[in-house]
Amino acid sequence: MKEREVYLENVSLAEAVDRFFVDLEESGALRLTGAEVVSVRQALGRITAEPVFARISSPHYSAAAMDGIAVSAKDTFGAGEKNPVRLKEGVNFHYVDTGDPLPPGCDAVIMIEEVHPLGDGEVEIVAPCSPWDNVRGIGEDIAAAELVVPENHRLRPQDLSAILAAGHTAVRVRKKPRVAVIPTGTELVNPGEPLKPGDIIESNSAMISGLVEEWGGEALVLEKAEDDFELIKRRIEEGLSAADVVVINAGSSAGSEDYTAKCIRAMGELLVHGVAIKPGKPVVLGRIAGKPVIGIPGYPVSAYLAMELFVKPIVYRMQGLPVPGRHKIRARLSRRVVSSIGTLEFLRVKVGRMGSEFIASPLSRGAGVIMSVVRADGIVRIPESREGIESGESVEVELLRDREEIENTVLMIGSHDVTIDLLANELKRLYPEITLSSAHVGSMGGIMALMRGETHMAGLHLLDPETGEYNLPYIRKYLAGRKVVLVNLAYRQQGLMVAKGNPKGIRGIEDLVREDVTFVNRQKGAGTRILLDLKLKELDIDPGRIRGYGKEEYTHLAVAAAVAGGMADAGLGILAAARAMDLDFVPVAPERFDIAIPHEFYPMDSIQKVLKILRSEEFKRKIESLGGYDTSRTGELIGGD
Amino acid sequence: MKEREVYLENVSLAEAVDRFFVDLEESGALRLTGAEVVSVRQALGRITAEPVFARISSPHYSAAAMDGIAVSAKDTFGAGEKNPVRLKEGVNFHYVDTGDPLPPGCDAVIMIEEVHPLGDGEVEIVAPCSPWDNVRGIGEDIAAAELVVPENHRLRPQDLSAILAAGHTAVRVRKKPRVAVIPTGTELVNPGEPLKPGDIIESNSAMISGLVEEWGGEALVLEKAEDDFELIKRRIEEGLSAADVVVINAGSSAGSEDYTAKCIRAMGELLVHGVAIKPGKPVVLGRIAGKPVIGIPGYPVSAYLAMELFVKPIVYRMQGLPVPGRHKIRARLSRRVVSSIGTLEFLRVKVGRMGSEFIASPLSRGAGVIMSVVRADGIVRIPESREGIESGESVEVELLRDREEIENTVLMIGSHDVTIDLLANELKRLYPEITLSSAHVGSMGGIMALMRGETHMAGLHLLDPETGEYNLPYIRKYLAGRKVVLVNLAYRQQGLMVAKGNPKGIRGIEDLVREDVTFVNRQKGAGTRILLDLKLKELDIDPGRIRGYGKEEYTHLAVAAAVAGGMADAGLGILAAARAMDLDFVPVAPERFDIAIPHEFYPMDSIQKVLKILRSEEFKRKIESLGGYDTSRTGELIGGD
Repeated sequence: MKEREVYLENVSLAEAVDRFFVDLEESGALRLTGAEVVSVRQALGRITAEPVFARISSPHYSAAAMDGIAVSAKDTFGAGEKNPVRLKEGVNFHYVDTGDPLPPGCDAVIMIEEVHPLGDGEVEIVAPCSPWDNVRGIGEDIAAAELVVPENHRLRPQDLSAILAAGHTAVRVRKKPRVAVIPTGTELVNPGEPLKPGDIIESNSAMISGLVEEWGGEALVLEKAEDDFELIKRRIEEGLSAADVVVINAGSSAGSEDYTAKCIRAMGELLVHGVAIKPGKPVVLGRIAGKPVIGIPGYPVSAYLAMELFVKPIVYRMQGLPVPGRHKIRARLSRRVVSSIGTLEFLRVKVGRMGSEFIASPLSRGAGVIMSVVRADGIVRIPESREGIESGESVEVELLRDREEIENTVLMIGSHDVTIDLLANELKRLYPEITLSSAHVGSMGGIMALMRGETHMAGLHLLDPETGEYNLPYIRKYLAGRKVVLVNLAYRQQGLMVAKGNPKGIRGIEDLVREDVTFVNRQKGAGTRILLDLKLKELDIDPGRIRGYGKEEYTHLAVAAAVAGGMADAGLGILAAARAMDLDFVPVAPERFDIAIPHEFYPMDSIQKVLKILRSEEFKRKIESLGGYDTSRTGELIGGD
Repeated sequence: MKEREVYLENVSLAEAVDRFFVDLEESGALRLTGAEVVSVRQALGRITAEPVFARISSPHYSAAAMDGIAVSAKDTFGAGEKNPVRLKEGVNFHYVDTGDPLPPGCDAVIMIEEVHPLGDGEVEIVAPCSPWDNVRGIGEDIAAAELVVPENHRLRPQDLSAILAAGHTAVRVRKKPRVAVIPTGTELVNPGEPLKPGDIIESNSAMISGLVEEWGGEALVLEKAEDDFELIKRRIEEGLSAADVVVINAGSSAGSEDYTAKCIRAMGELLVHGVAIKPGKPVVLGRIAGKPVIGIPGYPVSAYLAMELFVKPIVYRMQGLPVPGRHKIRARLSRRVVSSIGTLEFLRVKVGRMGSEFIASPLSRGAGVIMSVVRADGIVRIPESREGIESGESVEVELLRDREEIENTVLMIGSHDVTIDLLANELKRLYPEITLSSAHVGSMGGIMALMRGETHMAGLHLLDPETGEYNLPYIRKYLAGRKVVLVNLAYRQQGLMVAKGNPKGIRGIEDLVREDVTFVNRQKGAGTRILLDLKLKELDIDPGRIRGYGKEEYTHLAVAAAVAGGMADAGLGILAAARAMDLDFVPVAPERFDIAIPHEFYPMDSIQKVLKILRSEEFKRKIESLGGYDTSRTGELIGGD
C-alpha cells in the first residue's frame, strides 16, 4: 500500500470560512489590489480606486437650452397676444441652436416654435420671457469640484460620460486581482490531445478562469503539473510571484498522490483541510507568503462550489466590493431527498413555475456530473442538521439563472429521446426567450412527475402489454380524472445496439441469455425497460439468466456509450443513439413516442410554441435526418377519452 | 433666418417602436449576425451559433469514483463483521485513486476508509459490495452525441468546462453585432483639448459605446464629423460598410444644423422623426442599405434613453437573444410631479427603503443633466395619459441598480456641503456594501423630506433669527412630536465668493446693492439663503435692490461656478466651494452644520457606520484639510429636548 496522508478534517463550512477569512484578514492577505490609471474610454466595468471630483463644470459656459432666439429678457416685457413685440436680428436677438453660448447682452432664449418671423430680419413674439429662461447655467449638470463618483464604484456607461464631461481623460482604477490557476494531475491531457483510458481532459481550468473573470479578476492559467511534490511546489512559487491568489486544482484530498495540502504545509500555513460539505469536501485552505492559496477538488461540481465559497469572496474583497449574493426564491421540492447529518449538501435543482408556485426538482447529485451545474436553475442547501428534505417541503433556492428566464421555461420530465434535444434547440433558436428544460427519468418517472404537478410536459413511450396500446392506458390509470392532451412526437425504431460489425453475431432478444454476451439495461420505469420485459415474457426468458440485467443506465446514449466502451455487448435502445456512437443496430420493434400535456398547461403561450414547432415541416425534416424515425403523425393529437 | 427642417413629428413611443421594428423585421434588417469559430477558452459570455453536441463521452472509460481498492464484486460476497473477507493485492484487488481506470477483471471500488490493511499486501473487508459500486461508468456525466448546450445560449464558466469535457476545443459563436457610432457637431472637441465657450466635450460616445458593449455588441467610434451634410453622409457610408448598425449622435432635431434626418432621407428610408417622449423627443429612426440607422439626441440623458429604447433591442435580437427587462419594484413617490399630457416622461428617481416601503424621490428632470442618470436608482414612466403623479402615489420603478444595493443605501436629503461628498466616499471606501446617496434640496427641503418620511438623514444649517440657535428650533417647529437625533457634521465659514483678486472690491453684504455688482442667490429654503435674508434684514437692505437676487442655484458649487464663469460678481457660500473654483472669499459668518436623524433610523447598522466615520480622527483630518471648517464638535450629539 502506498503512503497516505492522514484523513481529512471535517470542519463545518461556517468554521472553515471563519478560520480562513479571519486568518487572511489578520495577516493582511486580503488587502486591496493597487491602482492603475486607465483612459476613461477603457474604464467600463472597472472599479474606482479614488473618488472622482469634477475638474471643470459642465456646461462650462452659459448655453442655449433650446433652438431659438437669444434675447435680453427686459426687451420682451409686456409682450402678449394683443401686444406683440417686434425684435430685430443682431440688435434685439440672435438665432441660437441648442448648446450655443449666450451672445453678450442676452440672458434668455425663446423657443423657435414661439417665434413668428416677419421677414427682413424681424420677428414677433406674443409672450414675455424671464431672465435665464431656456438657458443652461454653468455647472447646471456638473459643478467643478463636485463628486462625480466615489471610490469603490463600478463604472457604468453613464459614469464614463460624466467623468469625461467633468474634464478628465483618465481615471484611477483598481488593478484586477490576479488569480493563478495550477492544473495538477498526471492523468490530465490538454483539450484536443488523444485520449487513453485513465486520461482526463483538463477542462476545469476553463471554468475556474471563467468564474474569476466574471467576478472581475484576471486568471492566469499556469502549465499543468504532474503529481509530484517538487514540481507542484515550483508551480505554486510561480503562481505566488505572478498573482495575488493561487488556486491549485485537484490533489486536494488525502490520497497517496494528493500533494496540495503537503505543499501548502511545507511552504506556509495550512489552515483547513476538509470541509463538511457535499460536493466539495476535500478542499484545502491556506496562506503562503501573505497570499491566499486554495486547493480545490478535481471533480468539476466540487471545484465549482469550492470556487464560489472560498475564492469568490477573496476576488471581490480585493477589489473593495461587497460579495454579491444570489437571488433567491422559495420553491416546493418535488421529491424526497435523503442527506447525511453533519454534512451541508448543495443540491442542484431544476426550477419551473407551475401555476402559482415554483417547483424544484433535484438533479444528479454526483460531484463528477458537471452537466448537473450546466442544467441547474438553482442550488438548495440541505443543512448539516437535517437528514434530508421531504417531498413537497418548501425550500429556498439560490438561483443560477435569471428569474425571468425561469418563468419562461417549459419543463419536460420523462423519457429521453434525441428528438427532445432537437426540440429544445429549435425552441431556443426560434423563440430565444423560451427555454425547454428536460430531465431524463424514464416514462414512468414522467407519469409520476405529471401526478406530482412537477412538469409541464412528459415524454412517454409506455406499451400496455394487455391492449398493445401506447401511453393512453397509463394516463387513464395513473392520472384518472385529470384532463391530459397527448401529442405524437414520432414513431421510432427500438433495437439492440451492438459493437460495429456485430462481432458476437447477436440477432435478437433471445441471444441475450448467451454466456458470452453481457447486457446493459435501462432503469425500472423506462419505456425501453418495459418493452424489454414484455419481449422477455413473450419469449419466456427468465431475466436472471441475462448477464448485466442489473446494470442500469438512464438514457439511450448512456446505454450506447456502455456498448461503445466495451462494458457491454448489447443494450436495447434507439437507432439514433446507436448511430451517434457508431454502433450496429438490430431492430426489435417500432414504438410510439408521445408528449403528454396536462390540460391546464395546454393554452400556455410557450406550450403553443412547442406545438407549432412539432407541426412544422422543417422540424420533421430534422427528425427524419436522424434516421430510424417516422414523423407521419408528428404533432398530431392522439385521440383518447 | 437660416433654413429649417419641418417641425418634428410627435408619434407615441408605441407607434414609433411599431413602425421602426416592423420595418426592420420585414426588410430583413434585423437578421442574426454571422458565426465565427473561437477557442472554448475564449468563449466566455459569447452566444452559441449552433447546438453543441458531445463528441465523446465523459468519462470516456470506466473510472474509480473514490480512492480505494478495485475489486470484482463477486469476491466480496458474504463479507460481514463476523465474517471478514481477505483480499490479496494484485490478485483480488488493486489500489486505485479517484479517476483511475478500472483494472481488467474489476467491476467495483471499495472506499479506502472501509479497507483494513493487514500487511504483506493483504487487506480485510467486513462488508460486501455490488457490481458498479463507486464506479463512474462511461458517459455518466456526458454521453457522446448528447446536447451539451443549445443554440442561442450565453456561455457560462461551467458550460466551457462541459464543452471541453465533451471533446471540443472550439465552438461556433455569433459574431458580436457591430455598432458604428458617429459623433457629429461642429461644437464638439475631444476630451483633453482646450475649451472655449460653445465647445462641448465629446463625452457621449463613451456612454454609447459602453452601452453597446454591455449588451454584447462591439462599438466602433468613427471620427467626429462637423455639421455638414456631405461629411455626415460620408461618415454614415463608412459606418454602413464597417458595421451592422449605425448610430449618429446629435443633429437629430429639426434645427438649421441638424442633418441626421436629412442624410437618412437622402440615403434610405426615414421611418420616424420625433417621438413623444421626454427626454429624447428628437430621435430619428431609419434604415439605409438594409441596416438600422438611428439618430439620437445630443443631450446625454436623451441619448441614454434613446439607446435603451431603440438600439438595445436591435443589439440583442441580432444575437438571437431576448431583450432583458429591468427589475421592477413598487415605491411611493415622495413629491408631486407635473407632466404633459401626450408625452411619456422618463423620470429619474432615487429610491430608498424607509422601513417597510420604498420611497422614490424625483431627481433633476433636465435632459442635459447626465448626473441625474449617474445618481439615479431607477426610472418611473409617467404615461402619456397622465398630467402628473401625486405625492404619495404608488409607482413602478425600473431599477438601474441592484435591489440589494438599494436596500443598503442611506438616503441623505437636505442641504449640500462638500463634507457630505467626503462622507459618501469614506463610507463606500470602508464599507463597500453601503451607499450614501445624497440629494441637494436645501435645509428646508431636508426638513420637508424628514416630515414626509422620505430620508434617513438630513443635512441642516438653519439659523433661527429669534434665538440665534441652529436647527433645533426648526426641528421643534416642523417635526413636533417626532424624536430626532441631531449630530454635528462641522462648523463652517460662510462668506461672499468673488472673482480671484476681488476686482470689484466687494467687502461685505452691503456692497451687493452696488449698481456694478451682480449677485447669484441660493434657492428659497436653503440655509444660506436664510442667512442672507437675515443679514439683509439686520442691515435693512431691500432684496429688490440686489441685481441677480432672483437667479437661484441649488448648491454652493453651482453658485461658485456662476461667479467663476463671470455670470455673477458675488454669491454667498462656503470657503471650500470658493477654493474649489479658485475664487476669493470674503467671510460673513460661521455656522453650524448638523445631521438630523429620526430616532427610528438611528439604530440601523448603516447609520451607526456613518456615525463611526464622523467620530474618526481620520475623517476629521480630511475635513480640516478642505479649509474653512472647524471639527471640534464633529460627531457630537447636539443636546435638545
